[in-house]
Amino acid sequence: MFDFSIEGQCDQSGARVGYFTTPHGTVATPCFMPVGTLATVKTLSPSQLAEAHPQVVLANTYHLHLQPGDDIIEAAGGLHKFMGWSGPMLTDSGGFQVFSLGGIRTIDEEGVTFKSPRDGAKIRFTPEVVMGIQNRLGADIVMCFDECPPYPAPHEAVSAAVERTSRWAERCLRAHQRSDQALFPIVQGGGYEDLRTHSVQALLELDAPGYAIGGVSVGEPTHQMHRVFRHTAPLLPKHKPRYAMGIGTYRELLEGVAQGIDMFDCVIPTRLARHGTALVGGERWNLKNSYYRRDFTPLDPKCSCYTCQQFTRAYLCHLVRTKESLGMTLLALHNVTELVRFVAQLRGAIQEGHFWDSYQRLSRLAS
Amino acid sequence: MFDFSIEGQCDQSGARVGYFTTPHGTVATPCFMPVGTLATVKTLSPSQLAEAHPQVVLANTYHLHLQPGDDIIEAAGGLHKFMGWSGPMLTDSGGFQVFSLGGIRTIDEEGVTFKSPRDGAKIRFTPEVVMGIQNRLGADIVMCFDECPPYPAPHEAVSAAVERTSRWAERCLRAHQRSDQALFPIVQGGGYEDLRTHSVQALLELDAPGYAIGGVSVGEPTHQMHRVFRHTAPLLPKHKPRYAMGIGTYRELLEGVAQGIDMFDCVIPTRLARHGTALVGGERWNLKNSYYRRDFTPLDPKCSCYTCQQFTRAYLCHLVRTKESLGMTLLALHNVTELVRFVAQLRGAIQEGHFWDSYQRLSRLAS
Repeated sequence: MFDFSIEGQCDQSGARVGYFTTPHGTVATPCFMPVGTLATVKTLSPSQLAEAHPQVVLANTYHLHLQPGDDIIEAAGGLHKFMGWSGPMLTDSGGFQVFSLGGIRTIDEEGVTFKSPRDGAKIRFTPEVVMGIQNRLGADIVMCFDECPPYPAPHEAVSAAVERTSRWAERCLRAHQRSDQALFPIVQGGGYEDLRTHSVQALLELDAPGYAIGGVSVGEPTHQMHRVFRHTAPLLPKHKPRYAMGIGTYRELLEGVAQGIDMFDCVIPTRLARHGTALVGGERWNLKNSYYRRDFTPLDPKCSCYTCQQFTRAYLCHLVRTKESLGMTLLALHNVTELVRFVAQLRGAIQEGHFWDSYQRLSRLAS
Repeated sequence: MFDFSIEGQCDQSGARVGYFTTPHGTVATPCFMPVGTLATVKTLSPSQLAEAHPQVVLANTYHLHLQPGDDIIEAAGGLHKFMGWSGPMLTDSGGFQVFSLGGIRTIDEEGVTFKSPRDGAKIRFTPEVVMGIQNRLGADIVMCFDECPPYPAPHEAVSAAVERTSRWAERCLRAHQRSDQALFPIVQGGGYEDLRTHSVQALLELDAPGYAIGGVSVGEPTHQMHRVFRHTAPLLPKHKPRYAMGIGTYRELLEGVAQGIDMFDCVIPTRLARHGTALVGGERWNLKNSYYRRDFTPLDPKCSCYTCQQFTRAYLCHLVRTKESLGMTLLALHNVTELVRFVAQLRGAIQEGHFWDSYQRLSRLAS
């Protein structure tokens, strides 16, 4: 049901082009996956989202367990039906969110106990509980429950998290119930190359259909993230998809693709949109700036999205300054289109044999 | 350029069916007009709005003068181009908003002075200023600057407002510069029938292409509003469109159509949507109610809008409860579709000769 085929590679880097088949369609990789935390990619309807042609859409297990509850989504016929998205979907494991809760959670070998920020109820996440939730949500790709240590953390603490993440991955695999969902383990190890190596080695024994690199984009310097990509990606099986979690700036996406990573997700395009910021040609433009008040040109004249085809920077500036939600919607539509297209263009460059040229040219992009 | 033809009438009421031609298309009347206060019908893109098939879209002169400024909209090529709406548009005169400012404005015979709530700058609205703004905005239908007294107000105060509104209407007509914009005077007079009669008589001398009934839906009891419709509408020229300002509940629309009013506008459908309320079959449903959490049926199974075709009440309930803006968008799309269709269906009933039956049946609607 899940097959990954590599259709092309770059000679000068690890970049590769592939297809990953899932029950809801084939994913052309490398790809950028927008995030629909609460079963909606914020401010966009599914038909608007479809215009950006995302290969995969994410949703967050932690958030959906709290609201509306995975029982309701299961009763609705699963996440795809509930939110009206018929393409491939991925749910994370909630590990990142739960460990980000800080003081209000307790960790033991079995799992994590925390208070619901919604109603204060005590909630327990174990590998088995998380797999049950993800089985009910019904995404095509599901993730192992992992321990994501804070950044920075000492070698000893990260090492313990790696060991626990390996044990939990085994439990996730045993608890996983649905053959129509691909379960990806998550490599941890922070900025420590020995621990990354160790994490990969332990997880390879699971013979999973794909592997994720977690514990990146957690506050570390960019050069360290790139070093983790360079070190870890080549250790992962060549003929399985590789997913870098939480990655979404132009620079990070470019570096990840160059290292042979196939899938990326980030809330950046929608979050920036809500703050009035557009992603254009490698830059971030704050549309609130009065500079744009009388700029009657399209946001990005080369972009084919609805926002760029129909409206001017002046109109977007007006919407952002007056806090009209249409401004957030139009910028989200453009930003998601932009990042999906950015990675799709890198894909095209690999296919056409000029990725290395693109990489060197685009490496000068600021952010 | 502006022609109004009546194509059918009800034998038992004042209801009629007409076509009003404007530079941006022909308006089939009676019709409900959604309001795009700041050059956006809140939460909807123009392409989403178009799915509701509104005959006319409103925008507010007062708000657009403050932000982004009518100079910017003029430079953009006018309101239609600025906001991406190619159909007929109408701007109000700002009278209602300016007089609602209460203590922070001063009125004299020349006009009204007030402080901008945006930056505290002193702004002066006179009939001439307001016509200049509306000429720059460029809507198809523009409104005379009127004095809209508070409700309730003594006969003497309302009488003075009627007299001033008449004098200002004459000044508006003299100041109006564009033959591609139809200027409608506004009948005032509150709940006083003698003053409504007097206001109509004075304004008829202007031989305007259409007339509006203002000073309704300002807090008066429903039965009084209906009495004003019944008294005032028949005094207006039969062969010119009649517009009741700020009208938008099912009950008010039904009564207005029965009295021979042709155009209505209201922020109700979008405002209710932002509060999680749907208009369905004459009722208001609060989708936040936990009653809907597991209701996997469409919002209105008989409705053809995107919201009702693609999503369940359970999903809308989830979006509303989690304050996701998509919930507001989907409810606004449905609510605008619903009120546009409600009046369009009354239009069909008039054409097909069964309006009086519909009127009697629908009069039992609660709100």
